Formats: sequence, structure tokens, C-alpha cells
Amino acid sequence: MANIQQVAQKAGVSVATVSRVLNNAPSVSPKTRLKVENAIKDLNYEPSMLGRNLRNSESRLLLVLLPSISNPFYTEIINGIQNTAIANSYNILLCETDSNPQRENIYFNMVKNKLADGVISMDPTVNMQKLNELAENHPVILCSEYEEGGSIPYVTIDNELAAYQAVKHLIKLGHDKIALINSDEKFLYARQRRNGYERALREFELPIRNEWIYHTKDLDFQNGVQAVRMLLQQEEKPSAIFAVSDTLAIGALKGINVSGLHVPNDIALVGFDNISFSNMTNPTLTTISQPMYNMGCTAAEMLISSIKEEKVESIVLDHELLIRESTMG
Amino acid sequence: MANIQQVAQKAGVSVATVSRVLNNAPSVSPKTRLKVENAIKDLNYEPSMLGRNLRNSESRLLLVLLPSISNPFYTEIINGIQNTAIANSYNILLCETDSNPQRENIYFNMVKNKLADGVISMDPTVNMQKLNELAENHPVILCSEYEEGGSIPYVTIDNELAAYQAVKHLIKLGHDKIALINSDEKFLYARQRRNGYERALREFELPIRNEWIYHTKDLDFQNGVQAVRMLLQQEEKPSAIFAVSDTLAIGALKGINVSGLHVPNDIALVGFDNISFSNMTNPTLTTISQPMYNMGCTAAEMLISSIKEEKVESIVLDHELLIRESTMG
Repeated sequence: MANIQQVAQKAGVSVATVSRVLNNAPSVSPKTRLKVENAIKDLNYEPSMLGRNLRNSESRLLLVLLPSISNPFYTEIINGIQNTAIANSYNILLCETDSNPQRENIYFNMVKNKLADGVISMDPTVNMQKLNELAENHPVILCSEYEEGGSIPYVTIDNELAAYQAVKHLIKLGHDKIALINSDEKFLYARQRRNGYERALREFELPIRNEWIYHTKDLDFQNGVQAVRMLLQQEEKPSAIFAVSDTLAIGALKGINVSGLHVPNDIALVGFDNISFSNMTNPTLTTISQPMYNMGCTAAEMLISSIKEEKVESIVLDHELLIRESTMG
Repeated sequence: MANIQQVAQKAGVSVATVSRVLNNAPSVSPKTRLKVENAIKDLNYEPSMLGRNLRNSESRLLLVLLPSISNPFYTEIINGIQNTAIANSYNILLCETDSNPQRENIYFNMVKNKLADGVISMDPTVNMQKLNELAENHPVILCSEYEEGGSIPYVTIDNELAAYQAVKHLIKLGHDKIALINSDEKFLYARQRRNGYERALREFELPIRNEWIYHTKDLDFQNGVQAVRMLLQQEEKPSAIFAVSDTLAIGALKGINVSGLHVPNDIALVGFDNISFSNMTNPTLTTISQPMYNMGCTAAEMLISSIKEEKVESIVLDHELLIRESTMG
């Protein structure tokens, strides 16, 4: 691979002149520019990106950290981030952390080394201490999952209220035996959604029964299938289930079908997110519609504002209860 | 932000000495090293990544180009790429091109500028001319979609044979009115799967009827819903449908349900890919199982071999017809 010295030698000019050509400086004569460009072409020389970045000191790249791309919940958010980024002449790089701290470090270093201008983290398992350290000197935004009382700006929804409304919908339909399929309560959203579930039950003086609360390790379909299998083994079976993600609810629907029961006649079912598949199931899934696309747009706008050193406030977006066949038949 | 000169000044040493400390050169005394490290800390200095990369000349990052993360088909492939990359001390960056040439350029430049060691492209809309140019000097592997007679190594399946087997399965069940929901035939896989469809029909002396072949613009669920709506408007309706992706087939299933018809009693249905959703539908979907995870692992192994300048041959992996409820009741 040729270096800049060899280009200068071949073109019969100084290294500084080659650099001026590479940076489109106006002080180079057309004749000299042509000589340098020919030398670059002949030697197949590729200037380093950092050499260029140092000049204008921005990469125009935004990093998006997500735990896994398997959950379609993230897909719509990413579309919003991406479209907003592009409209502002930024590009995004998706970084799947798989909850691995070493991989996080690599991505954080890209920002520290100015190979990216900022980070949007959607990863509920992110190392908050390291992220806070990064945020001291670099633009960082949290999307969906955030830190209560933390200093990094976030965009999210009111998870507790959404869960409360989902469970209240089931209670209003006459259900008094309502199970919860929750994810790991080390995550803030899981604790908030459980709070909403309990608030609705308490308000209508229904008992909170631990045997009707099932925690899954992940959010895959199979976790939902497994959860429903356990819930249906209870002596007293629930007549309705609220699952904290559509992927879990769709797995639960499958599990209920396999056991020969009918949704919603035997068991009513509510999910959370409104992923596109939730409208493809039979019956279609009642769910909390998160403003995923808008959440992505907002996160990207906040990050770009932060890069411009503008003041950025956290934002709580509106959600909506979508009533479909899995509760209304 | 401090630069290397300021660090040198504060530590009372030369810039070259700071550089030696940053690069862990053995020729620095512990006392000098400590002075430099303290100056770095005090000034909050962050060395550039390229400065470090130039030394060992590899980034340990692999780029993965994909058209869109919305299709779960890519998810499993990415899991395979990622796990293989990590096992070999590489990390991956996912680059959603959205079929946009400008965005492709940014990613190609990352490789040219040695910010990434190589590229796996899964994007059927990629600019093959530019990719071929990149492949002249940099490691590039094609995954799933490839170029017939091209020089870039690829891993794929036998799309024509798979489609042939899917349609033959329907014929063996007694169907003689079999529709095809295909994607845009500018893509190689779409042309190959259509060839397989036609080969099966010809072998059993069934007519190829253009009004039973529907082309979709994208692979979203809604494209499948729309396709089935059009097919069911035909005077003579098909009794079976082969869709070239599970997302299209799941949309078709929804469309058939909505029209009041039953799968498989009124219309049998076969998809392609075996995404995890395809086993969650009711009825479950008969489909061609692509070895997605293995395809990802293989692509990553091929790319890493190519980075090591080992000879890399293209690979065609085995697929499998998974017979489920959407054809067998």
C-alpha cells in the first residue's frame, strides 16, 4: 500500500501539497492537482479517514447500541433513528452488544477516538457506570430504557401507566384472575410494568398472587410458550394474561393454542409494543402501542442537538392501548 | 480537547516519548511513563484510534451490509456471523444500507481507510461494480445473494432446487393450481426461485399461468396480504400458494384468513426461510428451512480466512423442506 510520501515523490511535489489536494484546499493550481490525482490513481493510494476527520473533527457517524436485533421492537425504533440521522447528514452504525461488556468497550472507544460523534443506547443491560463516564465528555442519549435520577437525557414512555391501562382493560372485561408474564426485574421497564399491573389489581381490590407472576429470562417466543405452560399448570388457572412484550404474548398465544384452549374465550391476552407481527396472528393481539418510530426520531434529534452542544431535556412520549381480537373475540 | 503536544509539554518530554508510551514501547523508563500517564489523565487526553491502528494495521472490526433489519431472515444469519467473529476476536458492525448508494460509500470507505478489516454483504441491492472494486484490494464475502460468474466468494443455498421441492410437495398433495408470490426478479434469488417453480410445473405438465404469478415490491407482511388479495380476485383461484419468503407467506395467511378461507383446506401455503415466526402462526407454516445460522458462521469464517490471505472457495449449503400444518392440516 502506497503512503503519502510516495505519492508526493511520484507527483514531484511536497507532502504538504498532496495534503492540500486531499483536503480540497483552493491554493493548488489545476495542473498540480492533476499531477497529484494521477499519482494517487497510479499508486492506488487511499488516504486515511482520520487524516480527513482531524480537519473537520466530526465523523458524521452515530452509534446505536442494542442488546440484540432479534426483537422486532428495536426495528421500528432504528428506522426512526436512521431516517432522522440521514435527514441531518448523519449515518448510523448498529452495535449489537449481546450484553457483553468487552464489546461495549470497543464501541465506547470508537466515540472516545472520534470515529463516531455520539451514542444512542437502547441496551437495558448496558454498563451504566461506563456510559455515565462516556457521557461526561461525549454526547449520549438513552432510548426506551433509562436510569432513574440519572444525568443522561432519555426518551421513553410511561411504562407503569401503560401496564396499568392494559390490566384495567382486562378487569373491565370481567377478568379477576389475571396473570403477568414479566421479564427480568433487574430492568427498569420490567419493574415499572409490574408496578402498573399491581396498581390496577389493588385499585379493584383483586389479590396479587405470586404464582400468577412468571419471569422469563429472555423475550423470545419460546420464553412465552414456556411461561404459559407453567401458568396453565396452576391449580387455579388465570382467565387472562398480560405479557410485557409482544414476542412473549405471541409465544403465549401459541402455547394456549397447543393446549387446546381458545383465545380470548378461555384466556384473554394482552401484549406490549405493537410489533408488526402482532397484527398478523390469529386472533390479532391486543397490545400497548409504543410510538417506536417516533421514539427513534426523537432520540436521534436529541443526540444531534447534544452534538451541537444544545441543551437537551428528557422526553416521555404517549402510548396507546390497541384493542384487538385477543381480548374482544 | 488536549492534543499530543500539550501532553508532551505538561509531562516535560518529547512528542515521540508520548507516542512511545501510548504504543507500550519497552524503551521508556517507569518514571517517564508515569509522568506521561499523569499528564494524559490530567489533560483528559484521548489518543486517536488510527494512531494505534497504524501500528498493528488491523481494526478487528468486520462490516456486515444488509438492506434492512426488518426481515427476521437476517437476524439468524447475523447471530452466526457475530458468534464466529467473536470466537476469532473480531467484532461486527451492522450497516443498514436501505439500498442507498451514498450510504454504501461511507461503509466502503471505512474498509478502504482500514477502520474495518473486511465486509460481508447480504444486500441484494448492493452496487456490484463498487463492491467488485473494493474486493480487488480488500476482503469481501457475499452471503445469501451473490453474483453469477462473479469473482467474490459467496455462501448460499441452491435456491432453484429448494423452490422446485416446495412446489413439488404441493403437486404431490394433489394441487394443480399453484400460485407464486415472488419478489422483484431483478434479484438473483427471485429469478432462481421462479425457475424452480416453473421446473416443477413443467415436470408434471401443469400450465404456467402469468395471472398466478404476483411480484411484490418488498418483503413485508403487508406485501403478502396485498398479494393474496390480488390472487383471490382471479376468476379461477389457485388452490395452493408458494411464497418466496416467510414474511410474504405470513401476510398471505392473514389475507386468506380475513377473506374467510381456511389454510390448508381451501388454500395450501408454503413459505421460504424458516424464520422463528413461521412456527408461531396458526396454522404453522410449511417452509424451506435455510441454514441461516450456519450460513452466517460460514460467511464469517470465509471472511476471516480472506483477511489472513488464505484461499477462499464459494460454498453452497444444504436446505430442508419443513412440512407443517399450512399444507398438511
